[in-house]
This record gives sequence, C-alpha cells and structure tokens, in this order.
Amino acid sequence: MLFGMIDGKRLTELQLIARIQGSRRSRNAVLRVGIGDDCAVLRVPAGHEMIVTTDFSLEGRHFRRDWHSAQSVGHRCLARGLSDIAAMGGRPVVAFLSLALPKNFEVAWFDGFMEGFNALAERFGVELAGGDTAEAPGAEILADVMVVGAVPGGKALLRSGAKVGDSLYVTGSLGGAAVQLAALAAGAACPMVAESGQPQAFPQPRVEAGEALRGIATSCMDLSDGLSTDLRHLCEASGVGADTWAAALPIAPGATLEQALHGGEDYELLFTAGGEVPGWIAGVEVTRIGTVVAGSAVRIDGRELEVGGWEHFRG
Amino acid sequence: MLFGMIDGKRLTELQLIARIQGSRRSRNAVLRVGIGDDCAVLRVPAGHEMIVTTDFSLEGRHFRRDWHSAQSVGHRCLARGLSDIAAMGGRPVVAFLSLALPKNFEVAWFDGFMEGFNALAERFGVELAGGDTAEAPGAEILADVMVVGAVPGGKALLRSGAKVGDSLYVTGSLGGAAVQLAALAAGAACPMVAESGQPQAFPQPRVEAGEALRGIATSCMDLSDGLSTDLRHLCEASGVGADTWAAALPIAPGATLEQALHGGEDYELLFTAGGEVPGWIAGVEVTRIGTVVAGSAVRIDGRELEVGGWEHFRG
Repeated sequence: MLFGMIDGKRLTELQLIARIQGSRRSRNAVLRVGIGDDCAVLRVPAGHEMIVTTDFSLEGRHFRRDWHSAQSVGHRCLARGLSDIAAMGGRPVVAFLSLALPKNFEVAWFDGFMEGFNALAERFGVELAGGDTAEAPGAEILADVMVVGAVPGGKALLRSGAKVGDSLYVTGSLGGAAVQLAALAAGAACPMVAESGQPQAFPQPRVEAGEALRGIATSCMDLSDGLSTDLRHLCEASGVGADTWAAALPIAPGATLEQALHGGEDYELLFTAGGEVPGWIAGVEVTRIGTVVAGSAVRIDGRELEVGGWEHFRG
Repeated sequence: MLFGMIDGKRLTELQLIARIQGSRRSRNAVLRVGIGDDCAVLRVPAGHEMIVTTDFSLEGRHFRRDWHSAQSVGHRCLARGLSDIAAMGGRPVVAFLSLALPKNFEVAWFDGFMEGFNALAERFGVELAGGDTAEAPGAEILADVMVVGAVPGGKALLRSGAKVGDSLYVTGSLGGAAVQLAALAAGAACPMVAESGQPQAFPQPRVEAGEALRGIATSCMDLSDGLSTDLRHLCEASGVGADTWAAALPIAPGATLEQALHGGEDYELLFTAGGEVPGWIAGVEVTRIGTVVAGSAVRIDGRELEVGGWEHFRG
C-alpha cells in the first residue's frame, strides 16, 4: 500500500516499516521473534505472568498537533501503557505500535514521533515488537499502543484488593498535567525532548515505584482520568468507600485544588496499604491522602467527592 | 467521557464498556484478570510461548459501512488477527479490542459489530480480555484488534524457514474474497451472519490447519495481501526464490487468475514443506503450487511474478 507521505517523495508501507524497524534500539530476552513475521513471539520469564494493556492516542482527542510536539506525542502514546503496567506492579518488556497517518504526511513529524517513542522505550528497556501501519481515513493521526509486561505469578497489584482500615496514598503530585495543558492551550511552546517539569507533554510513568509496591500495596491503579474519577473506580472494584482530606493532597506547584482532584493525565499511582509505607519509594515522594472505609461513599473533608474527571479534549 | 451515541439517549464510556463486557461469553484458563483493571493478566500455559499480533480495521480503508454489515465488520476485525495466529501454528486465547466510534453513533450498529466479533471469538474459545474505547475524531469508525495466542516453545511456524527443494502449498482456494468484494461494491447485499461462501464478508481463519502444520511446514504465513505480494515476503524472509505454476493454483469459483494472484484477504495459509503433505489438513484442501528454489526470483510459469497485491480500498 502506498503512503501519501512526502518530502517530495512517496513512502511505501514497507519503507515506513523499515523506518520504524531501523529506529529500534532496545533488546531484551523476552522477545524471540519481532517485527517482520505474522506475529511476535514472546518467551515469558519462568514463574511470571504476562500483563497487557492497550491505549488509543487519537489526534483531537488525546493530543493536538498545534499544542504538542511530535516527540511529546510519541512519548505520551507509550507513557499511557507504561503507566498501566506500573499500576500492576509489573515490568514492561515489549510494545506494539499501530499507527495510521493521513495522506501527504510530513516524514519529519513521523521521525519526531518515533524519537519521542523510542527515547521512552529505551529508558525502560522496552522493545518495539510489532504493530500495524495504515493510511488514515481522515485528516487525523491515529495511534494505538499496546504494552506487554511481566509480573511474578500471582503478585500483580489489582484494583480490587483495598481493605477497610487501609490507608490511601498517591505518588508524586496532582494537577500538574492540567496546569501544563492550560499553558499549551494558551500557546506555550511544547519542548521536543523529555524534561522534568513537563507533566503533560512528557509524563513520567512510575514503573520503578510500581515494582517496589509489590508486597506493600493491597490495591493500586494509575491516575489517568483524575483522582475523583479513578478513586471511585478503585473503591467500586474493592467494594469499599474512602475518606480523603483536601489539606493532605500533594497539589502540584501552580495547580488549584480543582485541578488536583479532577485534572487528568498525571499518571501518578493511587494505592492502598495496611502496614508501614515509606515516605519515598523508588525516588518518588509518597503522600497519605485518606483512609479506606466501609460502604461505598467516596468523601473529601466529609462531603461527597463529586466526579469531575478528565474528558480529554472536548470535540 | 460521554459518547454521542444514540437511540435518543447518550451512552457514557462506562456504559459502553459494560455493554462490551456483557457480551463476553467465552472462558479460558489463560485469562486470570480481564476487563476492568489497568491491565489484563495472562497465565501462559507451561512450556508455551505467547504470540501476539495487532491489526487495524479502519472504515474506508479496510471496510465500508455501505458494503459490509456490522456483523461482517466485527467478524473481519477479529479474523485478521486469528489468521496471523494460525500462520504461526498457534492457538488463539484472548483478544483486545480498541474501538473509536464517531459522535451520534447508532447503538444498533455497535451491537451488530459485537455480535459478529463475539460469534467468531466463541468459535475459537477466544476471550475478550480488554481494549480501549474513545470517541473518534472524524466520521469514521476505527478499530484496532490485538490477538494473543499460545504455541509450544520453539515450535512457532516462521516465514524464514523455507529451504531450497521444499514444495510450496496453499490451503483452500484463492481469489474468492476479490470476487465477493467486487459483488459488494456492485451492490450485493452483505449477510448478517457468518455463512460459508462469503470469503470477503466472513473469512474463515485456518486456525486448526495452522496447528496441524506444526511439524510439517518449514515456513508459513497467511495470505492477506495477495499471493504475489505475500510469496515475495516469505521468500525474502527465507532467503530463497520460488517457481510456481498457474495451472496448479486452486482458483476460487468465479475468480480469474489475476484475482487468485493479486486479490487480497483470502486468509488462506501459504506454507513450505520438505516431506509428505496430506491432501487435506484439518478439513481444508491443500494444494501444491510450486517449488522453493535458490536465488531470489519469484516466478510463475517461468516468468517473473509481478507484485500486484491488495492495497485495501483506494482513497
């Protein structure tokens, strides 16, 4: 299939795949057969289970080309999945990238996208193991990224393990992504390389912290839709309620309480634990924000915590 | 996130996920944690490797709502991945469905889509283990389906194992999908349930035949882009050439030689073998169509077999 991509010239699907393959750098022991056959073949480490997550990143819904650099889009596509792996206490091993590009697309944008994607993959030793390419039916770039990870058998951190009396914690700070999103929407430049202090453009999945939480956390999930939405999901999965305190929330610099509660895409970990929890885990600060209680009510300072989570970009 | 789906009423993302979950029927031993957590957790059978494939099904590229019934679209989305698993000699176990639907979408279409998807999944004991949902940025329906399968360790059928002197075989017949595609384009009605004799609307992945070919085939792939394109891929992966004969091709009823050579989406298996090969495997006829030769030339009746494969629907 021909791609209407340019630089003056057209790029065939095979050339595009070769370009994706050429940008591969990581190597790991799980991937036995990668790009180029009908399937990837994965050898699961002894005593481990595989964990799998898949996330769309659609232009206009999850990113905008006028707000995000190509590198940021590539980074964020993969970060969504890595954060899900982290939330299970797993180690990411391979990723699959399905990418549909509109006709007459800029090769430079694609190269920037792969740069951002690969830099993050390399940091976690994740190998690109396959995927699919197509010409997009409309004008929007469409990506779907799957990440496969490994976790010791029976040790995955689930949403359903919270117990009445557990304490409730979050890693890092909340609302920073919402602050940066507002800035990008107002015209702030988006960096082309991952830098700290860019929580929306270059979120840092808490992979090391997630692994360290195995044996500590009774339940865990990542904060992609905002605390008010995600805490309710965790409570529903565990059949419990929660009491939280506004004064305890680790609000990101410049963020409001509203942004900390309802801003999405912070990609921090929300977890519960019964015993002692260190103040820092794998280099990330951990803050106690509440208690798991009987019932199903989710409260902040005694009032119901209304759901007001992330709805991506409104059409 | 709210979906602009109708029936008069709007459907939230959670309601849509509930509807997807509710339509799940199969159960298998591999899936330990399914829809509803950050990741699915898979327990790999002892002594097995996992095989993974992912395929886009984009409206306007891979299907058209005015040509294909909703049930056919759901069936075909999953059939693409099952056929890749078959080509590796594996057994499919779980699938992940990422589905983006345009604003104000018909719930009835979605239900028909899931009906087609689930009927095929059930036939092979495949469980829907997760995925993602989103509102599509444009007017087109966007699906990306991942299928995970299992294969005994080291036994996966690769494209790279063909040896000079091997014979070349295909299952079933070729060109039937191209014939039906032409009929659908000309206004023929598309059935709503899987029936035999509907190779484009309801292709039958050769899963049982693929499993039976372990220990027989030296290399294998599925015919998704057309024989002329795919045979070249197999030869390139194996570092060999091929001589084929037009008179030997199992041309589907009503198909031309051109359609058999270049029509895509037949989803038959193309394989090579050195020893004896039965005329029928797992209920499917097997036809010898040529010989693996030294060099890199791919020929039919002594002339070069020009690539003229499937380019999906031209924009």
